[in-house]
Amino acid sequence: MSISTSSIEQLSINAIRTLSMDAVQQANSGHPGTPMALAPVVYTLWNKHLKYDPANPHWQSRDRFVLSCGHASMLLYSTLHLAGVKKADGASEPSITIDNIRNFRQLHSPCAGHPEVHEAAGIETTTGPLGQGVATSVGMAIAAKWQAARFDEIFDYDVYALCSDGDLMEGVSSEAASVAGHLKLSNLCWVYDDNKITIEGDTDLAFTEDIPGRFRAMGWHVIEIADANDIEALDAAFTEFKTITDKPTLIVVHSIIAWGAPTKANTHGAHGAPLGDSEIEGTKAAYGWTYGKFEVPAEVYEHFNANLGARGAEAKSQWDASFAKYSKDNAEKAATWSSIISGELPAGWDAELPVFPADAKGIATRASGGKVLNAIAAKVPGLLGGSADLEPSTKTGLTFEGAGDFEAGSYCGRNFHFGIREHTMAAIGNGMALSGLRPYISTFFVFSDYLRPSLRLSAIMKAPVIYIFTHDSIGVGEDGPTHQPVEHLSAIRAIPNVAVFRPGDSNEVSQCYKTVMELTDRPSVLVLTRQNLPTLDRDKYACASGSARGAYVLADCDGTPEVLLMGTGSELSLVVEAYEKLTAEGVKARAISVPCLELFYEQDAAYQKEVMPCDVAARVAVEAGIRQSWDRLLGLKGEFVGMSSFGASAPAEELFPYFGITADHVVEAAKKSIGN
Amino acid sequence: MSISTSSIEQLSINAIRTLSMDAVQQANSGHPGTPMALAPVVYTLWNKHLKYDPANPHWQSRDRFVLSCGHASMLLYSTLHLAGVKKADGASEPSITIDNIRNFRQLHSPCAGHPEVHEAAGIETTTGPLGQGVATSVGMAIAAKWQAARFDEIFDYDVYALCSDGDLMEGVSSEAASVAGHLKLSNLCWVYDDNKITIEGDTDLAFTEDIPGRFRAMGWHVIEIADANDIEALDAAFTEFKTITDKPTLIVVHSIIAWGAPTKANTHGAHGAPLGDSEIEGTKAAYGWTYGKFEVPAEVYEHFNANLGARGAEAKSQWDASFAKYSKDNAEKAATWSSIISGELPAGWDAELPVFPADAKGIATRASGGKVLNAIAAKVPGLLGGSADLEPSTKTGLTFEGAGDFEAGSYCGRNFHFGIREHTMAAIGNGMALSGLRPYISTFFVFSDYLRPSLRLSAIMKAPVIYIFTHDSIGVGEDGPTHQPVEHLSAIRAIPNVAVFRPGDSNEVSQCYKTVMELTDRPSVLVLTRQNLPTLDRDKYACASGSARGAYVLADCDGTPEVLLMGTGSELSLVVEAYEKLTAEGVKARAISVPCLELFYEQDAAYQKEVMPCDVAARVAVEAGIRQSWDRLLGLKGEFVGMSSFGASAPAEELFPYFGITADHVVEAAKKSIGN
Repeated sequence: MSISTSSIEQLSINAIRTLSMDAVQQANSGHPGTPMALAPVVYTLWNKHLKYDPANPHWQSRDRFVLSCGHASMLLYSTLHLAGVKKADGASEPSITIDNIRNFRQLHSPCAGHPEVHEAAGIETTTGPLGQGVATSVGMAIAAKWQAARFDEIFDYDVYALCSDGDLMEGVSSEAASVAGHLKLSNLCWVYDDNKITIEGDTDLAFTEDIPGRFRAMGWHVIEIADANDIEALDAAFTEFKTITDKPTLIVVHSIIAWGAPTKANTHGAHGAPLGDSEIEGTKAAYGWTYGKFEVPAEVYEHFNANLGARGAEAKSQWDASFAKYSKDNAEKAATWSSIISGELPAGWDAELPVFPADAKGIATRASGGKVLNAIAAKVPGLLGGSADLEPSTKTGLTFEGAGDFEAGSYCGRNFHFGIREHTMAAIGNGMALSGLRPYISTFFVFSDYLRPSLRLSAIMKAPVIYIFTHDSIGVGEDGPTHQPVEHLSAIRAIPNVAVFRPGDSNEVSQCYKTVMELTDRPSVLVLTRQNLPTLDRDKYACASGSARGAYVLADCDGTPEVLLMGTGSELSLVVEAYEKLTAEGVKARAISVPCLELFYEQDAAYQKEVMPCDVAARVAVEAGIRQSWDRLLGLKGEFVGMSSFGASAPAEELFPYFGITADHVVEAAKKSIGN
Repeated sequence: MSISTSSIEQLSINAIRTLSMDAVQQANSGHPGTPMALAPVVYTLWNKHLKYDPANPHWQSRDRFVLSCGHASMLLYSTLHLAGVKKADGASEPSITIDNIRNFRQLHSPCAGHPEVHEAAGIETTTGPLGQGVATSVGMAIAAKWQAARFDEIFDYDVYALCSDGDLMEGVSSEAASVAGHLKLSNLCWVYDDNKITIEGDTDLAFTEDIPGRFRAMGWHVIEIADANDIEALDAAFTEFKTITDKPTLIVVHSIIAWGAPTKANTHGAHGAPLGDSEIEGTKAAYGWTYGKFEVPAEVYEHFNANLGARGAEAKSQWDASFAKYSKDNAEKAATWSSIISGELPAGWDAELPVFPADAKGIATRASGGKVLNAIAAKVPGLLGGSADLEPSTKTGLTFEGAGDFEAGSYCGRNFHFGIREHTMAAIGNGMALSGLRPYISTFFVFSDYLRPSLRLSAIMKAPVIYIFTHDSIGVGEDGPTHQPVEHLSAIRAIPNVAVFRPGDSNEVSQCYKTVMELTDRPSVLVLTRQNLPTLDRDKYACASGSARGAYVLADCDGTPEVLLMGTGSELSLVVEAYEKLTAEGVKARAISVPCLELFYEQDAAYQKEVMPCDVAARVAVEAGIRQSWDRLLGLKGEFVGMSSFGASAPAEELFPYFGITADHVVEAAKKSIGN
């Protein structure tokens, strides 16, 4: 292949490369080598294949491009800039300016170290933690298949993800590849940059798999390209991908990191550090690049505009016409589709939320959760999801007519079987949420650890994925410590921008679900029991609608309380029992239900003080987990009734007294706290 | 295959099955189907192949058997019981009695719902969370290869792991398989129970990979067995495994869950619930089993004793002779090996711990960490480890002569290249620790999320794996929020039985490492900076040896302090600076360094009160993470200077002031707290 700037194509490719090199050098930080290697891939995809209108970057049925190897972020920023992608649909300002690129990796620049989805139009998902981008791309492809199957083919699109060795070494990507192969997601194309270089040296140090063989075994179509600079081969590969109708496609591209750099090409020195001025000079000379720093010849912009731009505008305009026709022929379905994509809840969606009668024997919150989920999903058509092979236990199946299963070749169902792959399930949830759907995913609470990196990304991206975690404490019983969450409530509450709900009875389940559905700027976590909980008598205790404020007074004394008793989930009934005992003994106690700490902290100070007066220092929190997330409310004089160790294997009803989680201990703790 | 009890072999296999059925029924909880299906596999392995002396279950060079599908725990308990495994080396009491089995899944029975390593001899690792067992088995196989290469072939052994669909769907097992194939671990044999049944139904719902093809692509030798009841084929497969010298082996066994059960065989109803009395009756009839509940015919014990027992005793006795000879011929190496396996630190191991001179510019704690690690490893021969492709950044390479790399065919090295596979790296660490070595593993702190399920298992198992996490805060800088840990300190402190160290300067690094090496009843986590930290002048401030108590007074006022200032890591210097400013202004302040909260809470009450007097309510904690784990010390009047959101992409020196983490803010917070 010629390296020099001999054609407008080569000029455009080299513009991606030089902008990337210059930006990393200016920032004195970043990853130049991969953008230089993969510029031809991205150029070919964007300019010749991607269904993408730069003037309407949020067009719902656009093809998606995911840079899973997020460290190569300049590859994306350079491309978005050259492609003339706008800040918003119909906007005149560009999404990424040259000034933004000059400020790569600086405070307030949209060109962050790794792509951040809300920083600039054209960034489809936040990437950087390896494996997440490819796994998220599976969720995007699922969303396209679902829209196409449930509504119309016009809503289909393709999803491309560019990935590195690191992405494919991470377990989450194996899970994702397995799901994509199983589901025969023919609209999904991963491009694997096989450059043989990792941070510790050559990939042979740690990675010697037969990748094409592995992917074929997982049900993928595989294409190999010997040289990343071979535009014709790349073009043919993307064309071939579109002809494959029953499998996802992996394109393996053999590349040379920092292609063209005189001394650093093909070395891991070019991976994560600026090339240096003289190496850049040498590289630009090798490219025959005669322009200044951050300079882009006008014909490059024109070239992108005449290709990607013109093709995208035409596609969008055709789609608009198709959608207009579809809306005329299928008014109701078109309205439903539009309502889903708008993210707004349909009128009356919460009209039939279950109300549960008082019942001492009660019901497990996983069971009432299933009822509430079904009641909502029957009215909210974009709500869909599933479980990591635990649906019979998490009770998260949608059972009403028309819900159906999402399976290979039958993509209109709303029930998903993710297999025993929690991590990719959550990443898929992110991809579905980013595509405008409202996904829920479920597993046992203890296995939230398996999906934590994706949950963190939901939080960073403000993606309103609903996490339904059941079997939430030592109440799991006989399965023992490996299956009993103890630290997980505190550990998830620790993540910024996540709302964690642990309803204390089934009416709180209804109310918490209501709040969750309305919380669209963050992921929500619902933490539900395996075992039955009493349904509180709401004639006697305050209404469960207080749940919306995170914490509320359930039962109170006359005058100022001597002690505040607070709890969540399965321990709320112990709080109530202790409150009754203390009251009977003449101790002035207040019982507070705290289904969501995060929302309580977001209430105004007056409400917070009303519920938990500052001058009442005697406080007891009760939760069958560790105390860490309660200390802020307990202060130095509060007491905690809960866990301080891992659990044990035994029937649940034996474990609670064994670990001292009883109403009597709450009473004791209350008296101790009053005396502190 | 005949199902009936027609031979002593079949009788023994059916004893495993019936004990398992009876125990699950008695507990009214558990998983009978897999023990019934796989009894012939375990029987064949244990009685015909395993190098294992029931009288010496902790013999270091025994073959290991890992039940990765831990829910099938009765399969293991039944086998350990029938095999006559003793409670300890040379003990006369059995490890698992019939009474223990009768108390399956009850409080205080060693027969917990899932196997727990410290509950009974013969349980090699805690399993249950899927994928963990197989990944841990890779660490055990590595430990064998390492001992054999570094010392002598007599220390080699084989590692067998039994796994299910769930194990192979989990990403961590793909990572583990990739590592094992890459390293050509020919002493590793996984047996995959291909029963086509999962909790949601048939595996075809979610799992349609060509597993043999995938494993071959990952460098494994694959054997398929059409019927789990075919003992001859199983026998031949294990024999074939031992002939393969350059690859790990996967034996795919097609089985029928709940084999022999008249109505529940081959249904997912037999997976996770008791069969019921009548189904058990029918099954026993099908087996031709005429004995009572929990009854084992004497000839079964005799059969195990005459086969496994005799073969094991002979192997152990031969090994003893070999070791005696080896000790004579290689006294020094034998002593070194023995010292490693004993877990005791060699005399003088901490004699040359680095001491760092006061230095305002200072050094990053990842850099001083690397020096300290090398100083210790040079004297502690069982200390070995590596990184998930970040060694040049985490500075965890062992650079002294003779350290070397652990690679396929060159197994004596102490530096490991785990690839970008954090999760399996941690599980491998568990396997190495359970095998008597002292492993450390390292990655960026933010990626601790990827390995959290294995870290939790380290804690449950009290496995002293050393986790070295660098790039520990917004100090990461330009890489941005996805790479900046914010919640991770609190989230890991939340896990019971983990000690988290965040040293505040390089001399604290030395002292914390010293403490870590001596903490052998739990995993330790070292949290280190990317950026330089000043090295405190210890003539002016208290000696860093106070680190061993978790927290210590670094600098004090005369008399009772008005305010306590506490901090860790990169924020310790802000605490010191604020202390100096407050002191200059006449405010009585105390500066406290808190490198390890967990150890501080373990000190006696007198010391805790000495460092943090109860009556000083004005307190400020400073840490570039969220406040959650500090609230217990702050009380209702304390103030926190740290993070409450995700970070941002910019140079680190801009981010600290941007997020308000400065000495001036600490001073302000101190005054505010005094006024609270």
